[in-house]
Amino acid sequence: MTTPTVWNELDARLREIARLKSIGTLLGWDQETMMPPRAAEFRAEELALVATLAHDRIIDPRLTESVAACEADPELGAEDARRADLREIRRDIERAAKLPSDLVRELSETSSRALEAWKRARAESDFEAFRPWLERQVGLARRKAACLGAPEGGEGYDALLDEFEPGMRASGVERLFAPLRDALVRLIRSVREAGDGPSKAPCRVAVPVERQRELNRFVAAAVGFDFDAGRLDVSTHPFTEGVAPGDTRITTRYRDDEFLDALGSTLHEVGHGLYEQGLPKDRLAGHPLAEAASLGIHESQSRLWENQVGRSRAFWAWAAPHVRRLLSGAAAGLEADALHAAVNVVEPGPIRVESDEVTYNLHIMLRFDLERAMLRGDLAVADLPGAWNDRVRGDLGLEVADDRRGCLQDIHWSMGAIGYFPTYTLGNLYAAQLWEAARDANPDLEDGIAHGEFAPLLRWLREHVHAHGRRYPAAELCRRITRRALDHAPLVAYLESKVEAFYGPGSGPRSNTARR
Amino acid sequence: MTTPTVWNELDARLREIARLKSIGTLLGWDQETMMPPRAAEFRAEELALVATLAHDRIIDPRLTESVAACEADPELGAEDARRADLREIRRDIERAAKLPSDLVRELSETSSRALEAWKRARAESDFEAFRPWLERQVGLARRKAACLGAPEGGEGYDALLDEFEPGMRASGVERLFAPLRDALVRLIRSVREAGDGPSKAPCRVAVPVERQRELNRFVAAAVGFDFDAGRLDVSTHPFTEGVAPGDTRITTRYRDDEFLDALGSTLHEVGHGLYEQGLPKDRLAGHPLAEAASLGIHESQSRLWENQVGRSRAFWAWAAPHVRRLLSGAAAGLEADALHAAVNVVEPGPIRVESDEVTYNLHIMLRFDLERAMLRGDLAVADLPGAWNDRVRGDLGLEVADDRRGCLQDIHWSMGAIGYFPTYTLGNLYAAQLWEAARDANPDLEDGIAHGEFAPLLRWLREHVHAHGRRYPAAELCRRITRRALDHAPLVAYLESKVEAFYGPGSGPRSNTARR
Repeated sequence: MTTPTVWNELDARLREIARLKSIGTLLGWDQETMMPPRAAEFRAEELALVATLAHDRIIDPRLTESVAACEADPELGAEDARRADLREIRRDIERAAKLPSDLVRELSETSSRALEAWKRARAESDFEAFRPWLERQVGLARRKAACLGAPEGGEGYDALLDEFEPGMRASGVERLFAPLRDALVRLIRSVREAGDGPSKAPCRVAVPVERQRELNRFVAAAVGFDFDAGRLDVSTHPFTEGVAPGDTRITTRYRDDEFLDALGSTLHEVGHGLYEQGLPKDRLAGHPLAEAASLGIHESQSRLWENQVGRSRAFWAWAAPHVRRLLSGAAAGLEADALHAAVNVVEPGPIRVESDEVTYNLHIMLRFDLERAMLRGDLAVADLPGAWNDRVRGDLGLEVADDRRGCLQDIHWSMGAIGYFPTYTLGNLYAAQLWEAARDANPDLEDGIAHGEFAPLLRWLREHVHAHGRRYPAAELCRRITRRALDHAPLVAYLESKVEAFYGPGSGPRSNTARR
Repeated sequence: MTTPTVWNELDARLREIARLKSIGTLLGWDQETMMPPRAAEFRAEELALVATLAHDRIIDPRLTESVAACEADPELGAEDARRADLREIRRDIERAAKLPSDLVRELSETSSRALEAWKRARAESDFEAFRPWLERQVGLARRKAACLGAPEGGEGYDALLDEFEPGMRASGVERLFAPLRDALVRLIRSVREAGDGPSKAPCRVAVPVERQRELNRFVAAAVGFDFDAGRLDVSTHPFTEGVAPGDTRITTRYRDDEFLDALGSTLHEVGHGLYEQGLPKDRLAGHPLAEAASLGIHESQSRLWENQVGRSRAFWAWAAPHVRRLLSGAAAGLEADALHAAVNVVEPGPIRVESDEVTYNLHIMLRFDLERAMLRGDLAVADLPGAWNDRVRGDLGLEVADDRRGCLQDIHWSMGAIGYFPTYTLGNLYAAQLWEAARDANPDLEDGIAHGEFAPLLRWLREHVHAHGRRYPAAELCRRITRRALDHAPLVAYLESKVEAFYGPGSGPRSNTARR
């Protein structure tokens, strides 16, 4: 079939929007990794300009006409993938049309400035300096939610969540989180009762950052990250940006006394990066079919590589010799078992991004509840630190030493990203469910990983997740691949088996003590 | 005086254009320093889009109306600086209006793609792979020159040169270059006849790049480069970009066996960077008063720091202990005299950016003549390598080993920058003349430099050069500061004294041999 002219017209419009979005993404990446501090103010103006230019083109009536012409075309209508593409373009246009250009500019400018304010406030653990910015962001989020409108029977939060996880609602998140929370509380109790367990100590060796950099690049390339179409840099808060076709950038952060943290962080971002590199952007830049299905699905990719792969015995069987070879020095004696144990320690801590697989989700639930309460007006921004600290005490049994390690630790709210946090735990749920399906489809998956064969897993993810972009809504994608709706059971089963292995009777270091 | 509303309107329009240009500059910087190779194609589209968006806003009739309203305002008319600003805005609009948007897009896209082609061709020393791109660039340059129109009594080349060095013509370049060329030929003959002279050998020690990086950052900061408003990175071809207000980025390149090359390169770019950081961009982003007077003046700033400062005995008296401290190892024994001698070796070589102060200008004259001949059609692009090699043989007495070290060595033509090269030697001429004026005004300048006091020189440059932006055309700026028109005499005198000191009778290492 020849491509109809109307499709080419639509394609050209979307590609121009993609250029503008890509420029915005690069400006944001640069702001976090390279930009000198004095450039922040002008950068805020640039980001706002690009956001407005892109927005103007999305709500341009000629784009809608272009979509309508394609919808009316008999050839295009016969093709499922293009119909899905058109459906999603309509969704984007309708969503954008609800936001006035002035609000788009204000959201962008405020985010850039609040981000700089957050950086300073966090460095000095000064919540009061950040409070007015967070108040502005919560106010803007309310305005945005009001413009977008709550779905039938839903709440304002849903309108925001829908940007990150299309189709999901706060009530749906609650339904998924409640049984998960019960299981997590139970698991943490049994870890606490077990008393001792695996230890990070043997792996807490001093390793110069330069050597760690080599190891991280080696592992990223080994699992499949394409450095001809990507980069690995350093930033305070690790992140991934799909900058453009052929340009996916991930970041990590190094500490010279915790090389496993950086490696875990890199594997996480590599997971995101592989998804970005697997989307069909070369053919379809600017089309929803070349964009991630949802942030939850995005997070499932990062979590799967970080946890299901990166915290498995098989992975360390392969990785341990490379760790010894590339880090040498104090790391020269580390065996696979010690590495595997160190990354599976369960121990409540104040910092989300440093937390283990089990307690991590409690950090997310806390943020979900507090941001929802702030948006509703049930929690005043001024009361956030107190509410945060109470919740950490209740959920994790910890006292928060200062706001830097409390409510100022995350970048998200500074950027106005309210409704984003739940996608992390949704990602963990998707990851566990996808991992079960991948293992069912490839019984030799873990044996291969133990020999450094990551390609079968990547191929499976490419085929079942990456290639589709936004063709299927996240919930449907999950059902298509796993033959069931998303639920808590696979993640709970996965975490239970981990806790059992490391903290249950007969587990490694405590095999001589019969306590339970 | 209160600022008239018409001025604020103009200011808002210029600031938006500045944002777009700044975005284009960042995209270009990223392309040269960070971008993964597979992103090149999409980047070309982004750069072309941004160039077109900026161009559209420059030729927008509302900008011209805004300028006219300011010109008609009695308060603004009373102020010299604002009148100059308006004059230069008109110049930019008139120049832009002569270029159709399609040509602007084609120039931008071709430059990005030809740049990538040049990178590959240069790496493989494959002129034939680059030839079609250079032919396209020469063709586009002719079209551009035809659109712009030659000045009264001038030639097409003048229209291009005028972009980089406003007001200068090829015939004026010839008049300045002819006596300089005679002097250079004479100086090179006397160097050759002197037989021996200073040596680079004692300073050709192995120094790890990481250490060099520290030294380069230290020196850049010491002479006044503000790292809160700038960066220093690595690129194949060192360059400086004034990305935005508060954001000036310089690059250098390191070899572990030639630390003086990187340091000289850094000082050169720092000179450019100090100019960018000294322009009043915070107040006047987008205004000509916050832009460099010309590329020749820009180059005078880089040359002055690289040569008049960085190749002086005073500089090395200060720098030598820091070199020993920061590089240590094999550099631990280097004294000021040895360093000073090494950077003053005069020796014809094939590579422009590695050449000494004397032969450098012959490299420029060669490029000026050849690009002018290509533009006129007197030299076919296919004949360039032969013409290049003949000229290197004649001027420098060298055989060109391959095109990588011949006509493919420079980035400029790939980016369509024809008419750019002469500004390098104009910069050397301006630098020598400005340096004389700076020393006349501050007799203690060099004594201070020997003690690491660079601030008096920087202050003088800020006041006399940087602060004015484009207020005065380059030729007038030179006359105002030095009380005479630009001519070859100060540079010739400066180079003669250098050659006399290092290669004349009684000079350093040959003081025992009486040969002449």
